[in-house]
Amino acid sequence: MTDDRDTPPLDLSCPLPFSDYDRVVLAHGGGGRVMRRLIRELFVRELGGDELRRGHDGAVLRPTGPIAMTTDAFTVSPRRFPGGDLGSLAVHGTVNDLAMCGARPRALAASFILEEGLPLAELAALVASMGAAARACEVEVVTGDTKVVERGSGDGVYITTTGVGELLRAAPIGPAQLRPGDAVIVSGGVGEHGVAVMAAREGLSFEPPLRSDAGSVVRPALALIEAGVDVRCLRDPTRGGLASALAEIADDADLRIDVREAAVPVAPAVADACELLGLDPLYVACEGRFVAFVPEDEVGRALAILRAEGCPDAARIGAAATGSGVILEGPTGGRRHLDLLSGEQLPRIC
Amino acid sequence: MTDDRDTPPLDLSCPLPFSDYDRVVLAHGGGGRVMRRLIRELFVRELGGDELRRGHDGAVLRPTGPIAMTTDAFTVSPRRFPGGDLGSLAVHGTVNDLAMCGARPRALAASFILEEGLPLAELAALVASMGAAARACEVEVVTGDTKVVERGSGDGVYITTTGVGELLRAAPIGPAQLRPGDAVIVSGGVGEHGVAVMAAREGLSFEPPLRSDAGSVVRPALALIEAGVDVRCLRDPTRGGLASALAEIADDADLRIDVREAAVPVAPAVADACELLGLDPLYVACEGRFVAFVPEDEVGRALAILRAEGCPDAARIGAAATGSGVILEGPTGGRRHLDLLSGEQLPRIC
Repeated sequence: MTDDRDTPPLDLSCPLPFSDYDRVVLAHGGGGRVMRRLIRELFVRELGGDELRRGHDGAVLRPTGPIAMTTDAFTVSPRRFPGGDLGSLAVHGTVNDLAMCGARPRALAASFILEEGLPLAELAALVASMGAAARACEVEVVTGDTKVVERGSGDGVYITTTGVGELLRAAPIGPAQLRPGDAVIVSGGVGEHGVAVMAAREGLSFEPPLRSDAGSVVRPALALIEAGVDVRCLRDPTRGGLASALAEIADDADLRIDVREAAVPVAPAVADACELLGLDPLYVACEGRFVAFVPEDEVGRALAILRAEGCPDAARIGAAATGSGVILEGPTGGRRHLDLLSGEQLPRIC
Repeated sequence: MTDDRDTPPLDLSCPLPFSDYDRVVLAHGGGGRVMRRLIRELFVRELGGDELRRGHDGAVLRPTGPIAMTTDAFTVSPRRFPGGDLGSLAVHGTVNDLAMCGARPRALAASFILEEGLPLAELAALVASMGAAARACEVEVVTGDTKVVERGSGDGVYITTTGVGELLRAAPIGPAQLRPGDAVIVSGGVGEHGVAVMAAREGLSFEPPLRSDAGSVVRPALALIEAGVDVRCLRDPTRGGLASALAEIADDADLRIDVREAAVPVAPAVADACELLGLDPLYVACEGRFVAFVPEDEVGRALAILRAEGCPDAARIGAAATGSGVILEGPTGGRRHLDLLSGEQLPRIC
């Protein structure tokens, strides 16, 4: 463990074609010429499809059926971490929530709260990263907003993204659909996002290096639905990690969920870092993983689909049963409750 | 002018059924039990319809045709001002943007960035105000998100609302539809929001008292469309006020807009306050007004509709012509350009 960072420093000296300033000033949110130029020459250029370029107060969408809508504010600190940054996270977090509804992401709205004094080169890098993530996820940023708050009233930049997607099937997906006996699958190793952000925040580096799992789960999640797997519930275990996601689902479904600890994939680097940092990996945030509840007799097919769609470590980790709460069965057969934490393990993780 | 405020002080001593804390703590955003209780017992209770109560990562909507989507961050300071607060403004600002697209508001997503230390009683009052505004506007808050940032990294609370609405007509509405000769109508007196917030921020009160115009313009705006008026463009003049809205439209439409100063409704209290504060009312934000461009021969009918829908001061203020920019004709015939301001007149106005 050393105090080198894995992320190369940002070049803040690059020329900024879109502003006479090198830092955010109040005028960037003032509704005048300075704001209009920032929007046209940075946001529209980096993010824009046809709708954003129209430059009206809102975008027009033409869905062909029911849609899902979801929103998330992103406040991650630090804004750049191994494996991602605030800009890409603001895309991945929201498209993932759409996928968890069984919807194919179609449109994003992006709202920026900028703090006076933020280097514009850093903003430009985050917006470029956001645009690249959106294109990779085949989702269009269709509308946006920018506000500027005084120095000391923010922390650089916060981004709220709201997504709209087209539902792929009529049958609902959610805790209410869960049945006793359904199996629970996790798509990959847990806790990688949380420990990578935590390490970046503290300036720690580990060997092997930690890297956030932040990324899109749209393809593997929707592949299950498109293949006709009877997916009962999907959830991405972000804040509070796998344990909290399962505890919420158990509560909402009024069922018990039994988890076999040895079956939960945890990368050795994550396990080591958690031990050093005093964290339980089951409660550490993921930003590129999901859990899927499917009937027991579809587990084999579901795992094969996930592995073919870039989730080599997908694993069946347990099953639902009558009762309540989440029960973790340890490697030697001991059992403990995985409850919602009352407090806060890792602030500003997303 | 005195330094009394018009807004009665908030009672911060009321009991809080939804938390063991009296201020926001990091755990309110931590993904655990404290956050879940805040969401269920405050946000869902005050804002919720069926979708929000489902408690999934996203909401399901069933639009029957094309939709409009718009997003806005709200950072107004102070959070309470005569005529509204951050909560109601976050509803009105977004439903108004939908109406400006010619869409009937159907759903709102709400994202909260809370600063550690915010009194929960104040948050509860803002959320209650938001819920009341949404019900009055017949729009449902369907999904949301809450993040908490450390003390000093925010300013109490910022809200981003994203709206989805159903388009009322197929023909597009926007600057590109403008024709030379089209008349421009404003729905009421301008600048009332900006001066009311400015006065509240500075602790000033005026006689007669200033009151923000913040409110919904959905009914009058959509009434024009429903009556079959050939509305070419709609825009609500928020940041930068009437002058900036017209300058943007003239630029986007590649036309000139001529405005007769004497025809622009400005309440005497606003004119007086602007004189004292050194502001030009044409550049001061409104949050409950809009401009509509309609063919000249429909002006009479449009004004009659607006007056019947709660806009007694609606007035024809000018017309589009070939050329560029916005030309203001003064009471004695003098002319001046109304350009986009380069900087910032009133920060944190919305």
